Amino acid sequence: MNAEIIAVGSELLLGQITNTNARFLSNHLAELGINVYYHTVVGDNPTRLEDAIKIAENRADLILFTGGLGPTKDDLTKEAIARHLDTTLEMNVEALDSIVAYFERAGLPMTENNKKQALVLKDSDVLVNYNGMAPGMMYKKDERVYILLPGPPKEMEPMFQFEAKPKLASLLNKADIILSHVLRFYGIGEAELEDRLHHILEKQTNPTIAPLAADGEVTIRITAKTNTTEEAWKLIEGTKEEILDVVGNYLYGYDNDSLASKVVELLKHQGKTISAAESLTAGLFQSELASVPGASAVLSGGVITYNEEMKVHQLGLSAELLAEYGVVSEQTALAMAEAVRAKFKTDISVSLTGAAGPDAHGDQPAGTVWIGIATEETSKSYRLQLSGMRNTNRLRAVKLALYYVIRTLTEENARKI
Amino acid sequence: MNAEIIAVGSELLLGQITNTNARFLSNHLAELGINVYYHTVVGDNPTRLEDAIKIAENRADLILFTGGLGPTKDDLTKEAIARHLDTTLEMNVEALDSIVAYFERAGLPMTENNKKQALVLKDSDVLVNYNGMAPGMMYKKDERVYILLPGPPKEMEPMFQFEAKPKLASLLNKADIILSHVLRFYGIGEAELEDRLHHILEKQTNPTIAPLAADGEVTIRITAKTNTTEEAWKLIEGTKEEILDVVGNYLYGYDNDSLASKVVELLKHQGKTISAAESLTAGLFQSELASVPGASAVLSGGVITYNEEMKVHQLGLSAELLAEYGVVSEQTALAMAEAVRAKFKTDISVSLTGAAGPDAHGDQPAGTVWIGIATEETSKSYRLQLSGMRNTNRLRAVKLALYYVIRTLTEENARKI
Repeated sequence: MNAEIIAVGSELLLGQITNTNARFLSNHLAELGINVYYHTVVGDNPTRLEDAIKIAENRADLILFTGGLGPTKDDLTKEAIARHLDTTLEMNVEALDSIVAYFERAGLPMTENNKKQALVLKDSDVLVNYNGMAPGMMYKKDERVYILLPGPPKEMEPMFQFEAKPKLASLLNKADIILSHVLRFYGIGEAELEDRLHHILEKQTNPTIAPLAADGEVTIRITAKTNTTEEAWKLIEGTKEEILDVVGNYLYGYDNDSLASKVVELLKHQGKTISAAESLTAGLFQSELASVPGASAVLSGGVITYNEEMKVHQLGLSAELLAEYGVVSEQTALAMAEAVRAKFKTDISVSLTGAAGPDAHGDQPAGTVWIGIATEETSKSYRLQLSGMRNTNRLRAVKLALYYVIRTLTEENARKI
Repeated sequence: MNAEIIAVGSELLLGQITNTNARFLSNHLAELGINVYYHTVVGDNPTRLEDAIKIAENRADLILFTGGLGPTKDDLTKEAIARHLDTTLEMNVEALDSIVAYFERAGLPMTENNKKQALVLKDSDVLVNYNGMAPGMMYKKDERVYILLPGPPKEMEPMFQFEAKPKLASLLNKADIILSHVLRFYGIGEAELEDRLHHILEKQTNPTIAPLAADGEVTIRITAKTNTTEEAWKLIEGTKEEILDVVGNYLYGYDNDSLASKVVELLKHQGKTISAAESLTAGLFQSELASVPGASAVLSGGVITYNEEMKVHQLGLSAELLAEYGVVSEQTALAMAEAVRAKFKTDISVSLTGAAGPDAHGDQPAGTVWIGIATEETSKSYRLQLSGMRNTNRLRAVKLALYYVIRTLTEENARKI
């Protein structure tokens, strides 16, 4: 089964929002073993939308639409599809009831234009909207499947996962099992990784191997296609071993791991806690950790000192040290890490100080960052010189700090065994 | 001039990354008055890429490509375009020199596959890559313009802005001036806003009015097309006044304003400082503020107390209060806000405590959030019941807290005048 995803919405073409729906759907379709060959974005224009549908019908037998199911005048996806497929729209009683109930619960008057959301394609399977009002639809015609989903991700995502995906899975021929496994690396560039794996990449057919770089990380996706799950895993495991023989020392995790989830996992495993003192990143390091469910077992908390005075008052750093070495310095990073570790009584602590940009900080150019790490054993510091924009630098500094925490935890643990 | 953006990369179709480049380019093309009618994403497959180019040539006279200019085997954009346009690739000496210099600076050996990046379309304008190795290209044939850009956003964005955009602007017929102005609202839904503005939206021709909802915010984009800048602004101002007469009390900002930038601006204007005590959001509130350049003038810092013990130790909350009311309670939110304000000696402070999910926190269901705000005048608290996923809830709580800060600062200031 080959799929195309068509996102409908002029706000996408004007650059007001990003098409995150296409990524979400592609991910889930890959899991089902469905090939996605194209994404298309088209505006709220019935003629151009119909042109896009015709092109998609020539190259896909599953077409997924996102957006244009809402209450307003420029929401026209289902109307255009009904016309193109020569069918009609009819009022869905359950959907209308749930829209009325939604307004009653909220204690708000329901405006007339909201009713339009309950219209669905005649003879379609209605997909329930758990987080909003407009229902989705699954419609079959001429061996082709059309799935209509709402635009807002928080409505679209659960609707696809819980309503559309099971229906889609039951349509598939299960003879082909496709499995993917992602290896995650840090500290090596994409070209170097590919160069060192050249002999393995050359002969790739099944499984296939796809390297990808993003935000300082490199991943390798290994995908096997065969008859049984066991056989697929065997193929994947063989290739994985070959790869790790060459670049295994840069590996930090697998699949949905992130640097943050890996830190939380290692801390839990070692029964340790963490704290942080942040100035440059103003809470972003701790917020990344807290984005991992269960982080509260290991993250005690920390201090954000966004001005110099607070470094003295809240962390007890000496004014002399700050005057002598400056806020953006190795000495300050080390003192911050040690102070927050003592204050929050944790096993490990991290500090981040630097000049995010666009301006320099005293004699330290924009992009200069010092990261401090303190444990019971030792205190270490790392200097980075980043060259991106302000918020790219802040995120990159957080990722590097997470990476150094992983290295520290792994190395100290190895010494103990 | 009508444009289409083609992103090349199987990682996009597998759902490994999001196509943020299309949004960035669309935004900048809209500024130039260039209509973007389609975005297309296609994989690292020369046949399908050529099919996509043919379709784009039927509906656009400017085609922008992102991705596929890198060193690896699956980077094949320029090769496919050269074949399709019946031209060749040639080595660009400047680009090769800068690649060699890049590896020398980094002290790394240059692998052979990196040289391929310096190949460009014969007779194209080379676009310099300030943040990476692969150069971009601008190529003209048969009244049609082709622009090739790298895939990584930190390379693509400055290359487009500083290299491609000026060249593109000089190609345009300047008779048509197109100006846009965005109004930003908070605290009103999209359907209600559209319903209340129905009489204005009905007659929209020039300027056009486009409402859009995202993450709890609603924006209205007013776009005027005319002969002079003065005339365009006059049209926009007239429509803006009509809109604000109806829903002006929900307006919080314009254009590139964000809730965070508005908070920083108001604090600067009133000469005030802010601090925060975060548990639920673990630094995300302060990190959002710090993402605004110049935030250090108003953000003193704060405390992250991610476990109960730290609320007692670091903020001096009484163990009795926590035992009686619980961590997720109005009383705790107020005490946290007051404590951090006193500790950091700021004019206003914010606290965030709650159960982000997926689990409940004691008898508080997932999604329960308390926000506290303390000023010299008063302490207030707000209870929210959110229904999204863990990290959606955390972001939504931060946005609401920023909104309440704006309201508090505005109201207290109004009372003083």
